[in-house]
Amino acid sequence: MDTTMSTQFIGELLGTAILVLLGDGVVAGVSLRKSKAEGAGWIAITLGWGAAVTIGAYSAGYMSPAHLNPAVTIGMAMTGNIGWDAVTPYILAQVLGGILGGILVFIQYYPHWKETQDSATILGVFSTGPAIRSLGMNLVSEIIGTFMLVFALLAFGMGDFGDGLNPIAVGILIISIGLSLGGTTGYAINPARDLGPRIAHAFLPIPNKGDSDWGYSWVPIAGPVIGAVLAAGLFMVLPI
Amino acid sequence: MDTTMSTQFIGELLGTAILVLLGDGVVAGVSLRKSKAEGAGWIAITLGWGAAVTIGAYSAGYMSPAHLNPAVTIGMAMTGNIGWDAVTPYILAQVLGGILGGILVFIQYYPHWKETQDSATILGVFSTGPAIRSLGMNLVSEIIGTFMLVFALLAFGMGDFGDGLNPIAVGILIISIGLSLGGTTGYAINPARDLGPRIAHAFLPIPNKGDSDWGYSWVPIAGPVIGAVLAAGLFMVLPI
Amino acid sequence: MDTTMSTQFIGELLGTAILVLLGDGVVAGVSLRKSKAEGAGWIAITLGWGAAVTIGAYSAGYMSPAHLNPAVTIGMAMTGNIGWDAVTPYILAQVLGGILGGILVFIQYYPHWKETQDSATILGVFSTGPAIRSLGMNLVSEIIGTFMLVFALLAFGMGDFGDGLNPIAVGILIISIGLSLGGTTGYAINPARDLGPRIAHAFLPIPNKGDSDWGYSWVPIAGPVIGAVLAAGLFMVLPI
Amino acid sequence: MDTTMSTQFIGELLGTAILVLLGDGVVAGVSLRKSKAEGAGWIAITLGWGAAVTIGAYSAGYMSPAHLNPAVTIGMAMTGNIGWDAVTPYILAQVLGGILGGILVFIQYYPHWKETQDSATILGVFSTGPAIRSLGMNLVSEIIGTFMLVFALLAFGMGDFGDGLNPIAVGILIISIGLSLGGTTGYAINPARDLGPRIAHAFLPIPNKGDSDWGYSWVPIAGPVIGAVLAAGLFMVLPI
Repeated sequence: MDTTMSTQFIGELLGTAILVLLGDGVVAGVSLRKSKAEGAGWIAITLGWGAAVTIGAYSAGYMSPAHLNPAVTIGMAMTGNIGWDAVTPYILAQVLGGILGGILVFIQYYPHWKETQDSATILGVFSTGPAIRSLGMNLVSEIIGTFMLVFALLAFGMGDFGDGLNPIAVGILIISIGLSLGGTTGYAINPARDLGPRIAHAFLPIPNKGDSDWGYSWVPIAGPVIGAVLAAGLFMVLPI
Repeated sequence: MDTTMSTQFIGELLGTAILVLLGDGVVAGVSLRKSKAEGAGWIAITLGWGAAVTIGAYSAGYMSPAHLNPAVTIGMAMTGNIGWDAVTPYILAQVLGGILGGILVFIQYYPHWKETQDSATILGVFSTGPAIRSLGMNLVSEIIGTFMLVFALLAFGMGDFGDGLNPIAVGILIISIGLSLGGTTGYAINPARDLGPRIAHAFLPIPNKGDSDWGYSWVPIAGPVIGAVLAAGLFMVLPI
Repeated sequence: MDTTMSTQFIGELLGTAILVLLGDGVVAGVSLRKSKAEGAGWIAITLGWGAAVTIGAYSAGYMSPAHLNPAVTIGMAMTGNIGWDAVTPYILAQVLGGILGGILVFIQYYPHWKETQDSATILGVFSTGPAIRSLGMNLVSEIIGTFMLVFALLAFGMGDFGDGLNPIAVGILIISIGLSLGGTTGYAINPARDLGPRIAHAFLPIPNKGDSDWGYSWVPIAGPVIGAVLAAGLFMVLPI
Repeated sequence: MDTTMSTQFIGELLGTAILVLLGDGVVAGVSLRKSKAEGAGWIAITLGWGAAVTIGAYSAGYMSPAHLNPAVTIGMAMTGNIGWDAVTPYILAQVLGGILGGILVFIQYYPHWKETQDSATILGVFSTGPAIRSLGMNLVSEIIGTFMLVFALLAFGMGDFGDGLNPIAVGILIISIGLSLGGTTGYAINPARDLGPRIAHAFLPIPNKGDSDWGYSWVPIAGPVIGAVLAAGLFMVLPI
C-alpha cells in the first residue's frame, strides 16, 4: 500500500469492525428470538459471513490491504507481501476492530437480547465454540480451516484484497470454508474475529449473558496462527 | 452523468420502480397465500432484495447514476459525487418510482391478495415494520444499516452504480445488510423504498388490507437520512 | 454474430436444449419422488433456473447471440440488434431445442417417473402452470415478468449474451424474476421454454403422466411476446 | 502451461485434494451428527460443491491448468488443449489428490464419525451412490452430467481454469449440474473425486463405517469418461 501506516491502521480497524458487525450480525439475526431472520439456518450464516468479508474488504481496501485477520497478516509477512514491521500495528488494529464490531452488534440487536434466554446462544453471536468439545481435535479443525484460507489467498496471488474482483473471490472462499469445514468449530479462522467480540461480550451489559468461555478462547487464536504458518511455509517450498 | 436531467429523472424513477417491484415482489411471493414461493423464507427474501437492487441499477444505469435511494443521493451530494441541484429531482423521482413499483406489485400478485387474510402480512409486502416495536432502537437500527450502505458505497469508489461489475457488488452489499442487520426492522435503508409503496398501499383497493401504520413511517425515513449523513461525514474526515 | 446462419441455428437449438435440460432438471430434482434434491424448495428452483440460463448462454455463446428465447429474439429484432430475417430460424431452433431439452430431462430422471404418482407434478417438470388459475391475470403476470426481462437486457446494452460477464448478469436477472415475480405463474417468460417441453410431455411415454394442459399453453406464449414488444417499445421511446 | 510437468503434477494433486476436502467436507457437515451444519440440505451441498471447485481451481491455477478431473483431462486432450503425454500423470495426480482429500475430511470431522451410526451416511460423505439403484440408468445420468460439464467447459473457450473469472464460471457450472442433474446419482462427474475418497474410505479406521460399495464404483468412472468423450466429439464436429 502507498498509504501511511496510520491510514492502514484505520483501514484494518474499521474493516475488521465491519466484518464483525456483519458476520456476528448474521448469527444474531438467525439465532436471537423474535428476529425476522430467526431460524434461517446454516446457509444464511455461511452466506452472510462470506458477504461480511467481501464488504469488509471492499470498505477497507482503499486504506489498507484489508487482511482483517492476524493469521492472514502473519502469512503475508512470511511470504514478503508486507513488511514485518506492519504486523504488530495491523494485529492491534484488527483486535480493536473486533471489539468495536462486537459493541455495534450489541447495539444493533438491542431489543432482542432480553427476549433470548439461552446464554450459550448469546455467546455464540459473539464468538465461536465447538460442536463437540475436544480441544485437540478442535485445534486441528481450526488449523485445517485457516491453512485452507491462507494457502488459497496466496495462490490467488492477491496482494491487496480490496481491489476489483478480489473481495468477491475472498467471499466465495469464506463461504466455501464455512459450508465445508465450519461444522466442527464454527470456523473462527481469525483470532481477531473471535477474541475481539469475546472481550466485548465480557464487558458489555448484555441481558441473559453467561460467562465468556475463556477456557476455549485460546483454540481460535492458536489454531489460525498455526494454520497460517503451515500454509505460508508450504507455499514457499512449492516449486513455483 | 453526461445525460440530461430529464433523462436522469426518468432513470431514477424507472430504476426505483423496478427495485420496488422486484424487492416488494419477493416479499409478496414468500408471504402471500398460494404463491409458489410461499414459505421460501428469509434467505429468499434477502437474496431477492439483493438481486432487485442489482437489476434496478443495471436497468437505470445507462440513464442515471442509479442511486435509487434518497439517502444515497444525499451522501453522494455531501461528498461531491453529484451537484446539490440534482438532489431534489432525484428524490422526487425515487419516491414516484417507489409508488409506481408498489402499484406494479399489486397488479402482479392480484389474485393472491384476497387469499391472504392477515393485514399485517399485506402491509409487510409494501413497507417495513419492526420485529420488536421500540421506535428509538428501531431508528438506531436503520441508522446503522444505512451507515453501512453509504460508507461501503463511498469506499467502493463508485460514482455510477450501473457500470460493469458495480451492480453485482452493490447487490452483495444489500444481501449482506439484509442477512446481518435486517432482522430488527426489515432494513428499509431507503426512504423511497418504504414511503413510496406505503403511499401505494394507502390508496390502492387491496382486499384484506388494514391501515398503513403511518405512526412508524418516519423511522425508515429519518434513520436512513441520519445514517447517510454520518457515513458521508466519517468518509470525509478519514485521512485518505 | 459473424458466424453463418446455420451455426447460429445450431447455437440457439443447442443452447435452448441445455437451458431446458438444466432448468426443467432442477424442477425434476426438487419435485420427483426419491430424488436426492427432493424438497429442496423454491430457492433451489430459482437458483437452478438462473444457473441454467447462465450455462445455456455460455454454451451457445460462441455460435449464436444466445437469446434462447423467442420473446428476446423479437425484442432484439425490434431494437435493431439482429435482422428480422433471423427471427424465424431463431425461433424454430429455440422451439426444437426446447423439445430436445424435454426429452433429455425424461432420460436423465428415468427411474423417478414411475415413483411419482401425481400427474400435475410431472407436467410441472416440463411446463409452467398458474398458482391460481385466472387466465387474464396469469397473462398479465407473464407480460410483467417478460417486460422486466427484455427491458433489463436492453438496458444492459448487451448484444451477445454469451460474452464475458454477461451470462452471469443474465443469470442474476433470471434469479431475480423467479424469486420476485415467479410465484404466480412459475415465470415461463419464454415461449420456447414452455411450448417445447410441453410438446415433449405430450408424446413421451412418461409413466403416471396426465394431459398436457393445452388450455393454458397459449398464456406462456402470448404473455412473453406482448411483454417483449412493450419493453422494446418503451426502450425505443426513452430519451436516450 | 509454461510450468514444468512436476509442478503441474503437484498442482493437479493439491487442487484435487482441496476440491475433495471442501466437496466431501460439505457433505460431512450437512449429514454427520452434531455438526453445526447438520440438516442444511441439498442447497448447502450444491453451493458447497460449486465453491469447492472454484477454490480448488483458484488454488491450483498458478501451477497447472486445474482440470482436477480425469474426464476433463481426457476431453482437453481430445480437443488439443493439452498434449496426450500429460494425460497419465494428470490422472495419477488427481486420483492421489482424491485420496489425500478423503484423508483430510476424515481428520477434519474426526469427533463426528462415532456420533453417526448410519454407515450409508458415512460412505456418502466420501463417494457417490444412486438415489434409485439401476446401474444402466445411473450410468446414463453420469454420462449426461459429464457431457454437460465438458461441453460447457469447451464452449467457454477456457484453456486454464484457474485464471481471472474462470473459476467462478466453473463453480456456477458445477452448481447448475448439481441442482439440475444431481438428484439421481449425486453427480460424481469426476472419476478422481469418487474413486480417490472411496479408496480412503476403504483403508481408514472410520468408526461405524460399512463396506465401500465397490459394486457401484465403476459407474462414476465409466460414466464420466464416456460423457467427456461424447462432449469433446460433438464439440469437434460442430461447424465452428
